[in-house]
Order: sequence, then structure tokens, then C-alpha cells
Amino acid sequence: MSEAASESSSTTSVKTVTAAVLVIGNEILSGRTKDANLAYLAVELNKLGVRLVEARVIPDIEARIVEAVNALRARYDYLFTTGGIGPTHDDITAECIAKAFGVSLLRHPEAVERLRRNYKNPSDLNEARLRMANVPEGGVLIDNPVSGAPGFQIGNVFVMAGVPAIMQAMFQGLKHRLVGGAPMLSRTIGTNLPEGKIAEGLGALQDRHPEVEIGSYPFFRQGKFGVGLVIRATDRAAIDRTGEELRALLIGLGGEILEDTSG
Amino acid sequence: MSEAASESSSTTSVKTVTAAVLVIGNEILSGRTKDANLAYLAVELNKLGVRLVEARVIPDIEARIVEAVNALRARYDYLFTTGGIGPTHDDITAECIAKAFGVSLLRHPEAVERLRRNYKNPSDLNEARLRMANVPEGGVLIDNPVSGAPGFQIGNVFVMAGVPAIMQAMFQGLKHRLVGGAPMLSRTIGTNLPEGKIAEGLGALQDRHPEVEIGSYPFFRQGKFGVGLVIRATDRAAIDRTGEELRALLIGLGGEILEDTSG
Repeated sequence: MSEAASESSSTTSVKTVTAAVLVIGNEILSGRTKDANLAYLAVELNKLGVRLVEARVIPDIEARIVEAVNALRARYDYLFTTGGIGPTHDDITAECIAKAFGVSLLRHPEAVERLRRNYKNPSDLNEARLRMANVPEGGVLIDNPVSGAPGFQIGNVFVMAGVPAIMQAMFQGLKHRLVGGAPMLSRTIGTNLPEGKIAEGLGALQDRHPEVEIGSYPFFRQGKFGVGLVIRATDRAAIDRTGEELRALLIGLGGEILEDTSG
Repeated sequence: MSEAASESSSTTSVKTVTAAVLVIGNEILSGRTKDANLAYLAVELNKLGVRLVEARVIPDIEARIVEAVNALRARYDYLFTTGGIGPTHDDITAECIAKAFGVSLLRHPEAVERLRRNYKNPSDLNEARLRMANVPEGGVLIDNPVSGAPGFQIGNVFVMAGVPAIMQAMFQGLKHRLVGGAPMLSRTIGTNLPEGKIAEGLGALQDRHPEVEIGSYPFFRQGKFGVGLVIRATDRAAIDRTGEELRALLIGLGGEILEDTSG
């Protein structure tokens, strides 16, 4: 995004609502597990008019979690965390969030009740599992229709499970709590021209149209380069004005239009 | 990782060498592209005895890039960035790195030469493409055997392309410059027991063995939960001592051992 586009979007009358994602877990950093939650949240948040503008992946270390939570919740409208809310010793997210907010960690009665309903045999609800009912003071539960143990919201922070199926179910249940701005719309125009041939004209196009942001994403497939050019704005007409100029630019340079899709 | 394990590893005689990855690009945050570079770097760095301990994804905004580069290069032994070094207006990584280091951005003669060799027709090396030869003062080139345009290293920061095929080739060419510590070894034991049933014994096992870190990674497949338990340390014997106790714990709880692999 150009600085100009960034500034113009923040001065339009529609507020830009922003979010960050904090992925908590050694398994992503060791390469053992590929994170699937970031891409899911990016797409789902955008549908709601919430722009994901930063993501961090950090290990299960208390000081790092507290620091990142406080940095990100202060800077963005919403923060979504994934991971670290299970029953084992390395699940320390809830206590870290309590420390970040400077509040106590309490055993939430409704969360205990939900866990209880999940086990046929009362003795299965052992102390380790009861830890999953610990919620920072002031926290509001997030439903977990998959496995019972809830997440929670405190302030602008939403604390969710790391297992993708559970995280996704939690997000679908909480999304009505979010207040988004105008959704970012896009138009993607793909071409077989190399980036270097388009760059000058594309820069001039961006300069003429600071009301949109134009991204250039090269790809390399089967030994050939191509580019996906993405025009983004909250105003469809602005996108399409720029899009028509971009098509003309690419065709004028001898390029083929491989794709032209609006989203 | 437990705090105890974290502290003990930092006081052993073998230095822990750390790294962060900074993924620069709106396309990851919009959900358009799934990042593939983080998982690759996590695995490759670990082979070299370098532990990836943080990753951030940020947009193409100068102030954000400068801030993140300075935060991460100060905190970790190495920083690897991906993205934003192409020829278009949204490729601003090189100038941001120069600003982060407080040095000038220079046109690097050897980088110009490499670009020149890449184009049959001299006029194809236009001003936009020449921007790819801009390197912060003091930067050392990183080879790009795929498409010519080099990355660069400055201080402990390695600046690479975002296209995975190019990033991987760059990393393979630069890795001899890295000085790692003892590689982190692991043993993964999978079981069909739910996390909540294992948690108490697992916590006690971690307490008895602060010389290893034990992670518990639940999965949910075909409607059933299971857990991958991962023991990590730089000392194989320490891993295996803990591993045998863990097997006994799981079998004692009526679990099946679904996997037992060392890495």
C-alpha cells in the first residue's frame, strides 16, 4: 500500500476498523505445524469490514505473551489470539491475558457448567480440565460448539483455541460482536507481463489514483513469471475507474489479461 | 515451553542462537496469499541450530517496516525479511531497511551487473528494474539464482524475496553465513488420549524434567481428538529419558501409542 493511500483512507468519513492476530504456540515456530488460522481470519475479518493489519507468532513464554497482547490491543481496534487455552502445562494464555490486563484469573461458573455438560462421567472433569474454565475478571465467554471448553473476550481482545476447526467455530459465534467499517473491495487483474515492464506505468497509475491502493504480486509457475495486480478500496466505482486504466496500460504494453475478477 | 525450561536452556554452556522472521506484504494480511515462507524458514533454521522465536506479518507501510526491523534485529541474533524487493511502487523494503539502519540507499554496481546479465535487450533494464539494485550502504548481496535480482544482508538482517521459489533459493545460498548453536532435537509421541486426561501427569513430568520442554498439541480429525506430545532439547539422552517415562504414563492411562518418532 502506498503511504498516500494509507493516509487518504484514514481521512475519509468511513472509519477504518483494524485488527491484529496473535498466534501463540511453539509448534508454529518449530515448523511442526503450519498455521492455518491467519489466512482464515484475514478473509473473514475483511468480510466484516475489519482490516487485519498485523500478525505475530510468539512462543508459549509468559513475558512475550503479555508484552505482545498489550502492544497489539493498544494499537488496533481488535486483537484475536489463537492457541494456549487447553488443559496442559503449556497452555498459559488465560493467565497471561489476565496479567496483561492487570486483573485476577477467576474460575468462571458458566464455563465450569459447560465443561460439566461435556463429560458423562463427573470424575472426568478433573483439575486440569477445570483450568479451562479460568477466565480473567471481566471476561465474557466465547462459545465452543466443537469441544465445550469456551474461549473468552476481555475488552477488545478475543481469546480463541488454536485447533482450526474449533477456532473457526468460535469465530463464527463471536463475529456478531464486531463492529466493522466499510469492507475493503478489490479487483484482481492478472497478466503475463513481468513486473519490471509494468512498474513505471503502474507507479504513475497509483500516483494518479491515491484513493485506491494498488498491489503488485509476482508469481513464478512452471518456469514463467506473471503478476497479479490488485486494486483495493472501499469504493467500487473508484476501483473500476482505476481498473479500466490498468487494463489499457497492460494491453498497451503488449500484455495478455489472464484474469480480471472483482471481490 | 515452560519458563523453567526456557531459563535452564539459557544457562547451559551451549548458546541458544535465535532468529525472527518478518513477512512484509499486504497480500498475506488480506488473505489473498497464504504465507509459505514461515514454515520453510522454521524448519531450515532449526537444522542449522538457529531457533525461530518470533514472526511478524506487517503491511507495506514504511513506518511499520522500520519499527519492526529495529525491534527484531535488536532482540534476536538474526532477522530474515521476505517480500517487497521487486521493481514496483509497493516494493519499499530496501529503502525502509536503509532508514532502519540510518544509512544511505546506494545503487550497488555488482547488483546492476547481475541485473544486466539477466536481460538480453539492454533497454529492458529500465529505471524500475534498476531500483532492484538499490542496497543500503554496507549491504552484502544475497544471490538469486532464479531471477537475478539479488537480496542483501546488512548487519544481522537478511532481506529476501517473497516469492517462495526465490526465497528458498536465496536462503540455501546464504545459510553458510549463519553460525548456529546446538540444533534442537525432538521426539514426538502421539496418542489417542484426550489432553485433559494426560494433563496432570504431563505437568508433573515437565516439572521433573526441566532440561527438556514438553509441548502438547491436540488435533481433531474425523470427529476424534488426539494429541501429539513433543519433547524438545538439544540433548538426545535427556529427550529419551523423558520419552520413556512419557510412554509409561500414556500406557498407564490406557492410551495407545499412535506415533513415536525422533527428529
